[in-house]
Amino acid sequence: MTKTKNKIGKQTLIFNNQPKIIGSCSVVGVKEGQGPMKEWFDLILEEDIYGEKTWEKAEGKMLKEAMMTALQKSGKNKLDIDAILSGDLLNQLMTSSFTARDMQIPFIGLYGACSTMTESLIMGSVLIDGGYAGNLIAGASSHYCTAERQFRMPLEHGNQRPPSAQWTATASGAMVLSSEDKQEDVSKLVSFGADKSNQNTPKLYAAHQITVTHGTIGKVIDTGMKDANQMGAAMAPAAVDTILNHLEDTGREPTFYDIILTGDLGFVGKEIAKDLLVGAKLKEEKLSNVLDDCGTMLYEKEQDMHSGGSGCGCSACIFTSYVYKQMRAGKIKNALLISTGALLSTISPFQGESIPGIAHAVALKSTEGDK
Amino acid sequence: MTKTKNKIGKQTLIFNNQPKIIGSCSVVGVKEGQGPMKEWFDLILEEDIYGEKTWEKAEGKMLKEAMMTALQKSGKNKLDIDAILSGDLLNQLMTSSFTARDMQIPFIGLYGACSTMTESLIMGSVLIDGGYAGNLIAGASSHYCTAERQFRMPLEHGNQRPPSAQWTATASGAMVLSSEDKQEDVSKLVSFGADKSNQNTPKLYAAHQITVTHGTIGKVIDTGMKDANQMGAAMAPAAVDTILNHLEDTGREPTFYDIILTGDLGFVGKEIAKDLLVGAKLKEEKLSNVLDDCGTMLYEKEQDMHSGGSGCGCSACIFTSYVYKQMRAGKIKNALLISTGALLSTISPFQGESIPGIAHAVALKSTEGDK
Repeated sequence: MTKTKNKIGKQTLIFNNQPKIIGSCSVVGVKEGQGPMKEWFDLILEEDIYGEKTWEKAEGKMLKEAMMTALQKSGKNKLDIDAILSGDLLNQLMTSSFTARDMQIPFIGLYGACSTMTESLIMGSVLIDGGYAGNLIAGASSHYCTAERQFRMPLEHGNQRPPSAQWTATASGAMVLSSEDKQEDVSKLVSFGADKSNQNTPKLYAAHQITVTHGTIGKVIDTGMKDANQMGAAMAPAAVDTILNHLEDTGREPTFYDIILTGDLGFVGKEIAKDLLVGAKLKEEKLSNVLDDCGTMLYEKEQDMHSGGSGCGCSACIFTSYVYKQMRAGKIKNALLISTGALLSTISPFQGESIPGIAHAVALKSTEGDK
Repeated sequence: MTKTKNKIGKQTLIFNNQPKIIGSCSVVGVKEGQGPMKEWFDLILEEDIYGEKTWEKAEGKMLKEAMMTALQKSGKNKLDIDAILSGDLLNQLMTSSFTARDMQIPFIGLYGACSTMTESLIMGSVLIDGGYAGNLIAGASSHYCTAERQFRMPLEHGNQRPPSAQWTATASGAMVLSSEDKQEDVSKLVSFGADKSNQNTPKLYAAHQITVTHGTIGKVIDTGMKDANQMGAAMAPAAVDTILNHLEDTGREPTFYDIILTGDLGFVGKEIAKDLLVGAKLKEEKLSNVLDDCGTMLYEKEQDMHSGGSGCGCSACIFTSYVYKQMRAGKIKNALLISTGALLSTISPFQGESIPGIAHAVALKSTEGDK
């Protein structure tokens, strides 16, 4: 490893110029809007088709809505934005590509399967921190109905799902990253209830700035898992590898963070990840209070979604809603977000390949506004 | 637009710390190895299946070979490499994802269709220039047989192609980007004939350094083209938009460059691009000597490849072979490479969508070694 000024340890980038997240929006589907996070989302669709003729067009409309609303909340306009960094699960990034066409902003397409939200946050933070962009939008998206027919079966088939299977979230998340210190609404009383459709959103003071401090780029980890209904198990080793490398690179203890949030390991994968972390000599009592997983937070047990949520939109919508708003209110000070992706293709299993996983981590801190 | 220190104009990043390309490799298929560029490639396959059981595995082996050989030529080893930035045409980036798994190096997956080579070069240059990485590998790949069955028809179908159609290149390219000034072989007599299989490679002095000076991130441009056999026409407006923005941002004339090389517009798209550039008031006589297109350079007319080459591998293999070696020898001083991508998906045409294009530009300069 070469020594460079903005890299620490083996895999971690450090952002000394403190790129800020100054706007954020989550747009979710019907089922997600019935889950425990419902009060935190900005927009809950009445129907997952969102008035469009195809699921794919609906997903594109969701991502565009998320980007435009995040932009509006940030107090910026399209002309202030230097680039869009975004990805999704659809072949050829159909959702992101067509959204970027409609937005007419320079576009970097990214693919890390369900790890895409942190991939776009890391590369976006690099552009801001290094002075290559002043403001940009980082986004990610997934839709149950588009993913299901691309990766598994047409919905009409009524596919049976085993208990270890996860449910691809119908959700888009977008954030505006900026190099600027000031934000319109920092240190003002901002009701997050200004959100478009959601009247349940708690009233919170948005008195804190959110800064991206580190990004840890993940390796592709493959433990030989071949069961596509065990995505959590396939991705858990990648999440653990990235978390351990992040902690080693930064010299931090897990307890440094108020929350260590994996992307979409689900109930099965979360337990595996915890076991592996304990096996790697992290003390269980230090982990229990901080370790959580977006896939386990998105749905109620009663919704019968089996092992929980998945998809790029899973960590994207939990982060841009609950975590973002808790950090803006200063309730969460330090967060580590580790979106997790399974890098199988639609044909690789037929060629005897196992399911490799990847996970990228982003460390964020919440500090009081500079009023 | 916000002013930031490493951005000029609207879309162009400037790399003041001079990221260098210190190693490069091109691996191409049989047809490409029979074309006019044959003497410049590092490895020409005897069979496009490359000893594997599937075309997809063959493509993965090609990209891995390109990365490992570029690494070897750079004098670095795997442990020196901070990240791989790569993409390809296959759904879920199958080629790049599985190559990154085998390499065990932190991985950023990128998708810009056939524009991916310059997308990975730009984001790689940002990481090096900003001090977030010391050395990294940027790559891109395509394979006629994997692309044909994914995007069009199984080969067995014997599909007829109209004269405007292009031929997806069976080609992988990889480069090692580095922050270091010195290179093992600068100012030494290096026979590029050390390349693995290709004994025809010209003997040149590799006495020059290649520096990435600028990157221009493209917008998604859609002029409503719907004919998938007219990819060159669909991408030409994006190439032109990026070239014009690059020239305006940098204040350069076309004649600043010894070569302005679009990615894969082919014979049809190249003429359209030239017309559009002249229409935008660039003087034809200033363009004629410098404007060229990788898609028109890859095959002989007699090979009957219709409108020329396409695919991520097209600009990747021309750049990593001919352009790279000419620049290392000091024969080309200033180059502008604009890989061009068509962002249609496999299903978007069925939903009535037109074919959006994107193009990212990278400016490179060749300077004498510092012995």
